[in-house]
Amino acid sequence: MFEAAELEHKVAKADYKREEETLRRDLLAVQRALGQRPRFPVLILIAGVEGAGKSETVHLLNEWMDPRFIEVSGFGLPTEEEAAHPPMWRFWRALPPKGRIGVFFGAWHTIPILERVLGRLSAGDFAARMEEIMRLERMLAQEGVLLLKYWFHLSKAQQKRRIKALEKDRETSWKVTRYDRKLFEHYDDFIAVCEPFVRETSTAEAPWTVVPAADDRYRALFVGRHLLAALRARLDAPEPPAAAPAPAATVPDKVNVIRALELRQAMSREDYERRLAEVQGRLARATRHKRYGRISVVAVFEGNDAAGKGGAIRRLAAALDPRAYRIVPVAAPSEEERAQPYLWRFWRHVPRPGRLTIFDRSWYGRVLVERVEGFAAEPDWRRAYAEINDFEAQLAGHGAVVAKFWLAISKDEQHRRFKDREATPFKQHKITAEDWRNREKWDAYEAAVCEMVERTSTREAPWTLVEADNKLHARVKVIATLADRLEVALKAAK
Amino acid sequence: MFEAAELEHKVAKADYKREEETLRRDLLAVQRALGQRPRFPVLILIAGVEGAGKSETVHLLNEWMDPRFIEVSGFGLPTEEEAAHPPMWRFWRALPPKGRIGVFFGAWHTIPILERVLGRLSAGDFAARMEEIMRLERMLAQEGVLLLKYWFHLSKAQQKRRIKALEKDRETSWKVTRYDRKLFEHYDDFIAVCEPFVRETSTAEAPWTVVPAADDRYRALFVGRHLLAALRARLDAPEPPAAAPAPAATVPDKVNVIRALELRQAMSREDYERRLAEVQGRLARATRHKRYGRISVVAVFEGNDAAGKGGAIRRLAAALDPRAYRIVPVAAPSEEERAQPYLWRFWRHVPRPGRLTIFDRSWYGRVLVERVEGFAAEPDWRRAYAEINDFEAQLAGHGAVVAKFWLAISKDEQHRRFKDREATPFKQHKITAEDWRNREKWDAYEAAVCEMVERTSTREAPWTLVEADNKLHARVKVIATLADRLEVALKAAK
Repeated sequence: MFEAAELEHKVAKADYKREEETLRRDLLAVQRALGQRPRFPVLILIAGVEGAGKSETVHLLNEWMDPRFIEVSGFGLPTEEEAAHPPMWRFWRALPPKGRIGVFFGAWHTIPILERVLGRLSAGDFAARMEEIMRLERMLAQEGVLLLKYWFHLSKAQQKRRIKALEKDRETSWKVTRYDRKLFEHYDDFIAVCEPFVRETSTAEAPWTVVPAADDRYRALFVGRHLLAALRARLDAPEPPAAAPAPAATVPDKVNVIRALELRQAMSREDYERRLAEVQGRLARATRHKRYGRISVVAVFEGNDAAGKGGAIRRLAAALDPRAYRIVPVAAPSEEERAQPYLWRFWRHVPRPGRLTIFDRSWYGRVLVERVEGFAAEPDWRRAYAEINDFEAQLAGHGAVVAKFWLAISKDEQHRRFKDREATPFKQHKITAEDWRNREKWDAYEAAVCEMVERTSTREAPWTLVEADNKLHARVKVIATLADRLEVALKAAK
Repeated sequence: MFEAAELEHKVAKADYKREEETLRRDLLAVQRALGQRPRFPVLILIAGVEGAGKSETVHLLNEWMDPRFIEVSGFGLPTEEEAAHPPMWRFWRALPPKGRIGVFFGAWHTIPILERVLGRLSAGDFAARMEEIMRLERMLAQEGVLLLKYWFHLSKAQQKRRIKALEKDRETSWKVTRYDRKLFEHYDDFIAVCEPFVRETSTAEAPWTVVPAADDRYRALFVGRHLLAALRARLDAPEPPAAAPAPAATVPDKVNVIRALELRQAMSREDYERRLAEVQGRLARATRHKRYGRISVVAVFEGNDAAGKGGAIRRLAAALDPRAYRIVPVAAPSEEERAQPYLWRFWRHVPRPGRLTIFDRSWYGRVLVERVEGFAAEPDWRRAYAEINDFEAQLAGHGAVVAKFWLAISKDEQHRRFKDREATPFKQHKITAEDWRNREKWDAYEAAVCEMVERTSTREAPWTLVEADNKLHARVKVIATLADRLEVALKAAK
């Protein structure tokens, strides 16, 4: 994988100066084009062996282009805030928006590689991490990110030569830290891990580009030209055509989990008052448990229009300390959210341990309304199931209790509630022409829900189907379920 | 101040139920009106004696209104991330946007009061903190925030009665912590500090409302009705009329700091190459100093159009580790930024220690372009000078080096550069009709700059006027100045 990059290349100073001038002018022009009509973000990953000129190259990019529209993020050991969130959180918050260039100095591969070299990660676990990385990179690419991965390479002899040269020069000796020298001693171990890593994680949508790094000028031109070509190719690529809605699916009754529900569940108001106080009490006590500070909670609410999501959320929130939860009402994305991959707007609300976030509607929008209305292209919502499972697995893996509620009402009950809203002055704002139109797609929505539940109900993040024709029953079921989940998690929390 | 609130009030259960139903319906309606046309944010501060039902009241607000559009933030001891920023940073990031209600459980008064009660703050320092608080609250009010401050009060006897009742009931005994009991013992000390505090920080634009808290129902209705009345009054208030630009000021030559500059400064390219390497080296070494991790750096760039801000920023950035700085190009505010008070968009970029943020244009926009073009009403830009000084004093007070650069070119030089941009293909995007129009207001801008420098050049955050007709001289001066400032700060850093 790396052999070609170890050949000795040289570029004469005069040639370099001439080439650099053209390259710089061209890069500035494409950067400007990128920013004028922001259609996609550019993410550059900088990786490779120590001493290979990664830092110098990033400096050069900042000099060749306009540094005001380049965001460089270095990822070393996590800060306290970063460690309080799942490992990928800190990368998500640093993603560049459409029209900008982000440079990640070290990225999601850095710590897995280090741990494998130090023997702290087994071969199997390392393989699993590589799979995670490839899934993430594939998703980013499919969300439109131009992802360019540069591996800076030196042979062992070239690295030795370079360190000696850096150490000799007083101006640069500071660049060689004791940490670097330790890594140099482990060159063979390092390459033994990195070569298969680079080979395996070099995919069609996110290939690694190995940079011959021994000669400063050659390296600079190599990276500059590759970047220029990649940016031009992407800018010239035609826009994907607008999505047509997929034909509405149908679900055979025998596997239709929604039709199987008994939506009218009896509960008298008297029972409700008693049961509500009971489950709210259990929930409140769970959040005051001594180990509650070790877990976080993500509660997702989806359901038919008028199913009573808001009311259930309110009764759940009533049992909680107002300071320790946040409700995120998900509607049309803001300007900043539209400039980012789909899941970015949800990653920003991932709670720390001891906190609870309630999502009123959620990332499931992609496989529900965006699927049925054709707002998302079919390939995009088809890949969303796996991406959602991945996302929720990361949350659960970091100690979150992930509870997902689908509140189901019958078509007749929805009609009754819509009519009631129209007739009640202070409820009228809650019913629009669009709500009535959505009813025409009732069966398509039902099929979408069935597929969603089938594909995204996992052991650590199961769906709870809530029979919601009787609002009282629904509220008690939601809170009881969450209390159950918390009690189990607290028993297991270390 | 508190005597009236210590009177015993009672509300019969039946009366309460009837009143509460009306109140709840009305509050929900105003909350909806608030959100439908988001014109202003609502910020509710909850403070007062322990055991006075603050938590219960916040719960009630979440039940009466839609909790999805209420954000409750509790402020206890700062987290690591919060402590790495100036004290007010954590409040700024928690401010609710227009159309939403934010509730601060504890706020910027909490720690000063606690420290004064514990004897860790002198009377003089406490007075200074009160002044800071009043300035912040006045600014928020002038930026359009509806700021409602509720002080929940109990007499000593009432507090004792309440604690006993909470402890007796198994369901509520958890509410009385050992911390609370300690505070009860210090009731007199606490009131001795709080009474003057509440009296002095109760201003016209941000008055305290003292809540008689002994009776649960009375307290609930009291707060609910006050909140309802305040929201209605604000919703019904007419919008302020659009601002007319203030008449252009002129500045007598003898105090015109800009006219006093010798804008053409000699520097040969040879000298430039040598001096640039020298000052970039000094700057680089400063950022690698062992104590650099204890300070942060904020560098602000303002100047005439085409003065060379971008070029100076690039040469400065070239000396820095790309991972350790961020450039913030300030232009039109995003959707999220427009929903917040003016300074919010800058507070979000305040760097942590060891980090450097370069602002390409900045908060000075209010007293420059917004003043001259009339985008800001005269009262708004007139108050901005003091608010800016306050902001920069907070940054400097927390260990930031604040360096501000005004890059000045002559009118003739600007004309030459504009013409050059028009004639050069890859520079043409940088010149617009608006740039030419701004030249007609040259004198008004000059007067605005003079006033800005006069009013906002402080000891810890001085302005550096940079003679920029010669770009080479300008770049060297900027970097040399920053290197100077860092060297001084590092010597003094503990």
